[in-house]
Amino acid sequence: MRNIHQKLSVARGERRAQLAFKNARVVNVFSGEIYKTNVAVEDGRVIGFGDYGARTTINLDGAYLAPSLIDGHFHVESSMLTAPEFVRAVVPHGTGAVVIDPHEYANVLGLDGIRYVLESTKNLAVDFFIMLPSCVPATPFETSGAKLTADDLKLMIHDERIAGVAELMNFTGVFLSSKSELAKIAAGKGKAIDGHAPGLRGKNLNAYALAGVRSDHESVAVEEAREKLRLGMHVLLREGSTERNLEHLLPLLNAHNSQNCSFVTDDKLAGDLVNEGHVDYAVRKAIRCGVPPITAIQMATINTARHYRLKNLGAIAPRYWADFIVLDDLKRFRVRQTWKKGVLVAKDGEFLGKSPARVPLPRSTMNLRYSPKDFIVETNGKKKIRVIEIVPNQIVTKEIAVPPKIVGGEVVADTTRDILKIAVVERHHATGNVGVGFVRGFKLKRGAIASTVAHDAHNVVAAGVNDQDILFAIQELERLRGGQIAVADGKILAELPLPIAGLVTDQPLPKAVKLIADLNAAAHMLGCGLDAPFMTLSFLALSPIPALKLTDQGLIDATKLQKTTLFI
Amino acid sequence: MRNIHQKLSVARGERRAQLAFKNARVVNVFSGEIYKTNVAVEDGRVIGFGDYGARTTINLDGAYLAPSLIDGHFHVESSMLTAPEFVRAVVPHGTGAVVIDPHEYANVLGLDGIRYVLESTKNLAVDFFIMLPSCVPATPFETSGAKLTADDLKLMIHDERIAGVAELMNFTGVFLSSKSELAKIAAGKGKAIDGHAPGLRGKNLNAYALAGVRSDHESVAVEEAREKLRLGMHVLLREGSTERNLEHLLPLLNAHNSQNCSFVTDDKLAGDLVNEGHVDYAVRKAIRCGVPPITAIQMATINTARHYRLKNLGAIAPRYWADFIVLDDLKRFRVRQTWKKGVLVAKDGEFLGKSPARVPLPRSTMNLRYSPKDFIVETNGKKKIRVIEIVPNQIVTKEIAVPPKIVGGEVVADTTRDILKIAVVERHHATGNVGVGFVRGFKLKRGAIASTVAHDAHNVVAAGVNDQDILFAIQELERLRGGQIAVADGKILAELPLPIAGLVTDQPLPKAVKLIADLNAAAHMLGCGLDAPFMTLSFLALSPIPALKLTDQGLIDATKLQKTTLFI
Repeated sequence: MRNIHQKLSVARGERRAQLAFKNARVVNVFSGEIYKTNVAVEDGRVIGFGDYGARTTINLDGAYLAPSLIDGHFHVESSMLTAPEFVRAVVPHGTGAVVIDPHEYANVLGLDGIRYVLESTKNLAVDFFIMLPSCVPATPFETSGAKLTADDLKLMIHDERIAGVAELMNFTGVFLSSKSELAKIAAGKGKAIDGHAPGLRGKNLNAYALAGVRSDHESVAVEEAREKLRLGMHVLLREGSTERNLEHLLPLLNAHNSQNCSFVTDDKLAGDLVNEGHVDYAVRKAIRCGVPPITAIQMATINTARHYRLKNLGAIAPRYWADFIVLDDLKRFRVRQTWKKGVLVAKDGEFLGKSPARVPLPRSTMNLRYSPKDFIVETNGKKKIRVIEIVPNQIVTKEIAVPPKIVGGEVVADTTRDILKIAVVERHHATGNVGVGFVRGFKLKRGAIASTVAHDAHNVVAAGVNDQDILFAIQELERLRGGQIAVADGKILAELPLPIAGLVTDQPLPKAVKLIADLNAAAHMLGCGLDAPFMTLSFLALSPIPALKLTDQGLIDATKLQKTTLFI
Repeated sequence: MRNIHQKLSVARGERRAQLAFKNARVVNVFSGEIYKTNVAVEDGRVIGFGDYGARTTINLDGAYLAPSLIDGHFHVESSMLTAPEFVRAVVPHGTGAVVIDPHEYANVLGLDGIRYVLESTKNLAVDFFIMLPSCVPATPFETSGAKLTADDLKLMIHDERIAGVAELMNFTGVFLSSKSELAKIAAGKGKAIDGHAPGLRGKNLNAYALAGVRSDHESVAVEEAREKLRLGMHVLLREGSTERNLEHLLPLLNAHNSQNCSFVTDDKLAGDLVNEGHVDYAVRKAIRCGVPPITAIQMATINTARHYRLKNLGAIAPRYWADFIVLDDLKRFRVRQTWKKGVLVAKDGEFLGKSPARVPLPRSTMNLRYSPKDFIVETNGKKKIRVIEIVPNQIVTKEIAVPPKIVGGEVVADTTRDILKIAVVERHHATGNVGVGFVRGFKLKRGAIASTVAHDAHNVVAAGVNDQDILFAIQELERLRGGQIAVADGKILAELPLPIAGLVTDQPLPKAVKLIADLNAAAHMLGCGLDAPFMTLSFLALSPIPALKLTDQGLIDATKLQKTTLFI
């Protein structure tokens, strides 16, 4: 601890503190109490409770002073914001720390992506702790930008901001004792090992826990969460933009187990972060559902800090960082002020933090090779084709079989039946891989939409009514060095540049939120009826999730995890 | 994890487990539930819950299966037993792990003492985790066998069975930011840092916590414990042989804070361990006082394991060691069976574990130099002398001033006023240091008692009615290579050999318990009215505890921490 002798002297009351909060109603997550006291702060740390003289005194007039909130599992790429702009969005909501899994950066840039994340998340008004992605690439059926092995994880695990190994999505590999997956768990020795096991129950779940996985955030039903909790897995109750499990999982809590639960968001869009909130939203909702405020706050602070061993975070006590939120009403739970290391960083919804020094952006990640003929699907006499059917607001799809529409010997889109052409172009190594298929559910009447966010390999995915629009959209994304775009008849209707790994925008928060809204509006103008057309598009290439997906390697039967054919 | 592929295959249900407990009412400390299920065990570890085939099946017929108990702070020397004999005493009471502070061994033998403890506590039916003693010697006013600096602690801190830095008894040094004390805290970086701060409150307690101390076991009143808990210190509720704080501290618990509390015994005599119990006694008492059984069990298991980061201990869950206790009634809380790594090690009060291989004993530690004239106190004309007054059952003493009894120009004991002579002879380095004084409270009418257990430097301490008996007792302790003894008129009435560092007996448990009882009976025969004459004697040399003490360096004013004189 810096200046320890000086700080101890302040604690003993021999010299004035830098800062004191008077008449605070402190939410003490250790003693489980809320009581009035004064809190002294020096050099960014809490010094102690009691009657301390200070150079600056903040009279809280009985307002609540609680520890800043912590998100235990988040993919910052889901906001499409850089770390500083994400910070701008969440600090007014009381966030003080996040445990992130830079899974998308890693799929595109490998260790360079994690290094960029480590570098770009330093010295911000939110502390970032990083879990090392364990599933890069997600499957062998898509061409990602990089591969990470257990040996790669070992290279970085000792960094003090690395909190462990991120969600082991290949849960089958783990419980079947695949050597590569067990080696990744072993690489995280002594740090947190995160799980991801939607629907896994019974003996295979026993095996998953036995292998060393110690958390899960994928439960959607209370019985599944209870089974995981009983096995000693820290249960991360998720409330994100699309996955909203909190209300279903709250009945899990009893008088003896909340210390083993935390709140997480997993994925949350920039606009939702700004308008709805971040972890504060989960706390608010839990309290509204009847969870005692002290329990909800523990789940948003100390429980998470302990599970991930985040030092001196998640509580108000001597030696802990002076990371506070100020609230007037614990039931409404609206954050009025946010303090980071003793500095006021947000007030009444406004971010007051400093802009950090810019860090160098990672290299360009748009490395494509394709020609118009790659997108042509010649008929072969068969009567039916497999089509991906979108399930609105879900990442699973269905497989349907329909007769193809044939024009001039080519299978083409058919807007009358809502069947669009979809293409995935490999963008990392210029392999020339182009996968082509058909999709139902977008309802575009004209034009095309395209994205370089395309889970998990993040190749270019585009869907449209004809090859011209699809090709134009892809060309424009190349020009943007990555992004999302809506085009029609050779014109750009809206575009979101994502030059950072093709995943994240270099635009400031308000501009980013507006561009994203404009983009969705443009897709809707083209006839799309989905809530989040680009999010839906971005999951159509995700090969581990059933049923039918398209990657740069072609159509994938994601249930059997094998390649399949367009024609039946 | 050993044989991981095989264990995972058992978990998946593909091969039979070694052992299965059927119809167990499992106490799940994670989910805070008690429910019926079956538990499979393989190679010493829990594999999972559910319906597993096994080569051996134990039908528990609805009995409770809970994790084995953990003592979070214990000085094994207080039992005067070797580790294997201590294990024999506590395993029938359900103990599965202890966090020990080998403070006494370290004061006598330094790092060699800690190495002996590490060696002699291996592969037993109780797992031993060791905290590195932080206060050797306790003060400069006594001559201990060794000194330990922060650099010494750094040499051993990385051993996986070292759980951290033991109680920082020099709490004044810590809050006054003494470099040597802060260096000891820094040496424990990343591991547990235990406190010891009786009565410390307010700003100085803030400073103590700020310095990095993260637990305390010295609170006797609930308000003191609450203040420590609020500062983020893990509160260890003590229930030992003499310090019995549990009942006073239980009102500390509310619905939100028990995860930050654990049970400890600190010091417990062999006979009390056998007859009354160990951690099970604290659990029993807490439940009787109204603590919910699940909370009491959490405080005796997982809370402690988490605080000290004891891997895979304190819970029944996959990957955890199969350390179980079986009980028929949670309210009575009598342990019927104890299991260690899947092996039955105690049943119906009987220890079933194997005797471990003997480890070499440490070197002899009796290295005395003295002559009869060292014990003579010549009068010097002054009218009064300072006398140590015993406070029964406490380690503090009072200082009184009385006129000396003078015979032939020498100050001598005066049994009519219950004033005995007391002497402390340095025994580590043959310095020739002999401290001589007078004590009131033993009520011996004849003879002498003596001990090589004499906190914290463990020199020889003897009290008696004349120099002959005192000298005889000391000579006999030399012959025993350390021990405790009661003599009168040139005869031994009872003796307890403590050849291991002068602190611990080489006798088996039942013999040791008998010898200790005989010894106390002998002291009582000499007229002593105290409950535990040898324990009282052993604390009269403890220089950091007020008010008047005697060390090998003479009389110590332990309130002002300075040497003082016999004559006033």
